[in-house]
Amino acid sequence: MPHFLSQTDADFEARFTALLGMKREDSPDVDTAVAAIIADVRARGDSAVLELTAKFDRMAIAPAQMRFSEAEIAAECAKVSDADRAALELAAARIRAYHERQLPKDESWTDATGATLGWRWSAVSAAGLYVPGGLASYPSSVLMNAIPAKVAGVGRLAITVPTPDGVTNPLVLLAARIAGVDEIYRIGGAQAIAALAYGTQTIAPVDKITGPGNAFVAAAKRRVFGKVGIDMIAGPSEILVIADKDNDPDWIAVDLLSQAEHDESAQSILITDDAAFGEAVAQAVAKRLETLERRKIAGKSWEDFGAVIVVDSLDKAVELSDRIAPEHLELCVADPVALSRNITHAGAIFLGAWTPEAIGDYIGGPNHVLPTARSARFSSGLSVLDFMKRTTLAQMTPQALAAIGPSAERLAQSESLQAHGLSVRARLDRLNGPDAV
Amino acid sequence: MPHFLSQTDADFEARFTALLGMKREDSPDVDTAVAAIIADVRARGDSAVLELTAKFDRMAIAPAQMRFSEAEIAAECAKVSDADRAALELAAARIRAYHERQLPKDESWTDATGATLGWRWSAVSAAGLYVPGGLASYPSSVLMNAIPAKVAGVGRLAITVPTPDGVTNPLVLLAARIAGVDEIYRIGGAQAIAALAYGTQTIAPVDKITGPGNAFVAAAKRRVFGKVGIDMIAGPSEILVIADKDNDPDWIAVDLLSQAEHDESAQSILITDDAAFGEAVAQAVAKRLETLERRKIAGKSWEDFGAVIVVDSLDKAVELSDRIAPEHLELCVADPVALSRNITHAGAIFLGAWTPEAIGDYIGGPNHVLPTARSARFSSGLSVLDFMKRTTLAQMTPQALAAIGPSAERLAQSESLQAHGLSVRARLDRLNGPDAV
Repeated sequence: MPHFLSQTDADFEARFTALLGMKREDSPDVDTAVAAIIADVRARGDSAVLELTAKFDRMAIAPAQMRFSEAEIAAECAKVSDADRAALELAAARIRAYHERQLPKDESWTDATGATLGWRWSAVSAAGLYVPGGLASYPSSVLMNAIPAKVAGVGRLAITVPTPDGVTNPLVLLAARIAGVDEIYRIGGAQAIAALAYGTQTIAPVDKITGPGNAFVAAAKRRVFGKVGIDMIAGPSEILVIADKDNDPDWIAVDLLSQAEHDESAQSILITDDAAFGEAVAQAVAKRLETLERRKIAGKSWEDFGAVIVVDSLDKAVELSDRIAPEHLELCVADPVALSRNITHAGAIFLGAWTPEAIGDYIGGPNHVLPTARSARFSSGLSVLDFMKRTTLAQMTPQALAAIGPSAERLAQSESLQAHGLSVRARLDRLNGPDAV
Repeated sequence: MPHFLSQTDADFEARFTALLGMKREDSPDVDTAVAAIIADVRARGDSAVLELTAKFDRMAIAPAQMRFSEAEIAAECAKVSDADRAALELAAARIRAYHERQLPKDESWTDATGATLGWRWSAVSAAGLYVPGGLASYPSSVLMNAIPAKVAGVGRLAITVPTPDGVTNPLVLLAARIAGVDEIYRIGGAQAIAALAYGTQTIAPVDKITGPGNAFVAAAKRRVFGKVGIDMIAGPSEILVIADKDNDPDWIAVDLLSQAEHDESAQSILITDDAAFGEAVAQAVAKRLETLERRKIAGKSWEDFGAVIVVDSLDKAVELSDRIAPEHLELCVADPVALSRNITHAGAIFLGAWTPEAIGDYIGGPNHVLPTARSARFSSGLSVLDFMKRTTLAQMTPQALAAIGPSAERLAQSESLQAHGLSVRARLDRLNGPDAV
């Protein structure tokens, strides 16, 4: 049974706060092990990576086999059915179209002093994308990470994907090919992150690393942050559905289960203004769980972290939603657009009952890499901007410098940074001196 | 003497690579100490912060004294001269005008299937700004961090600034007041970062923390990253000047020194296509160093990390500049705008000899919080976007779901995520069933 909370309960606030603070992830402390792996890869390059691959992925390969050859990629891609290929291509086209709208504009203007100011965006030169192996090796994640990078203009995009016991997921390779990935390496774990960040004899270093991974990968990303850019440290997935009684309880039930089936640590929450509807959804979840393929995972997630919260009004639902700051938020209400305007913190909003969250996972267009664990309070889903950076531009004229330079000089003095002031003064003196401009 | 490199040297590439790889920062490993401080603040709140403040800042204060009162702020602000106040106000106005142009636009559109897609930006609710105490307590940094936050729409902006031995910098308080800061606390170090991230009895937690600090502050920011957002881990400052021979060597010398005087670990590099000009600049630096107030710091930085690099052409200068990915780049050449178009990696570009970098530190308008240590390859200076986040939006119609839903279902099946597929199928069945929409 999930948690049942009602706004009318005397202990509602305490129980809601407890729900918010629930520790869902039991991250093992792998930091020491990861530090050693990174040091080893920095010191020995390919040799270290290959030894670790032999150990963790049970694969003895030579340096020349680290990278998938064009022939290998083509052979794997050929295994994919036409229907799967068509679905991937439609998804890629929609994701690309959405992200192309995110390309930022350069700006330049001249102000009243004559100073020209602005900025210019440029792409990261090389990016690396980590793709998990095994159960969580998702072709959709390849598209969601690789397409924004390529839309941004990243020149060199490398993927690392471990292939434990030599097992490859053809759909991952096809997704990489469709997205325009340039290099694919069959390595994983902290050693892959180290190889991408520092480079080895075979793998040139990249500037930015994105993509999900296990505790080792997360710890490695945290450690190489600064040497390279990283996206975020993703936690277990979450969904919040706000639904009124005019919904099919079964639709809401499968939406809740579509997060719960990801992971025992996933969290699915329903907020409704109708207690009977909440009960009906819980019953529908129980019924679906009887036959769901991943019922063990989904059932455990729903039992441990699932919740049905009954509120007096949708306004209260909005307030609670902002405190949760959900990764995914479905608004299954009469006027979802109006309700959405009151929401401040959410990674992605799905408007109306005809927009199941799974559409956003695969094919809607928006990115499915989204802030978890309440981080939608301060961060955004993955976008083209994550693969770009901004250079600011300033150009003074002698007149502009004459207008604002003295204030800069004064502030430099107040901070006891004399040379800063002198660099302005030397020029101002020329303006006023015998060689005046 | 700084490092002299010439493209014609046989060992040029090796020496340039060594210059790039030079370790300038000797960060002490304070991570264990910082972890203990954070744990202590989380456990004991105000008591822990005040004990640590007594220990490190030699100030015994009560919880009620942690925050500057309005009367205290007003009294400190009254100590600032009219000229300093006017300079701060001009700087604030220019920084505000620049950053207001960074406010991003919301987007919404309907595609051919009838799906409505888009995104919406919103501000972080609460942000904390760390301001160092003592020598590096810069009012300009207060403006550069606080104004973008307020332009973004941050509702609650708190500053922590340690006041060792009770010494306060009135300009810092005035800058905070001009920028619209809401709360100012006289605490610092890792304990201030912990208080901002987790909250105490006196300080409500924030969602995002920005601002420079020492090794303890940097380690604490790295540790609370994820619980809150952070800006970047800033390293020592750097400048690269690309100058042809038609420059006043003294101007370039003071520009180089304006970075060198920050810190013994700062780095100032000149690239020129004229060896004699390079020599003249080095001589001008030596001459200025004789009388510079901070000559010990600037001299050590110039000697250890300064460099004059002579190249055959400005094209080569551009290539080397992109390998350096400088925080600050001055282009003192005949056509700086044209040259700047070839630059890919730089935090900020200053165009032409009339634009000394110090203008950007104080009053130009662009932000002076910029990526150091080659991180301009993948990151940008501080901006309004650092205090905002994007929520993606998607709304399907029944027809849109009919068009793209089957592909989502297929991809869900290929990833063995049955409930994802069912959440689409349940709706598609309604479309095709007896109750068809």
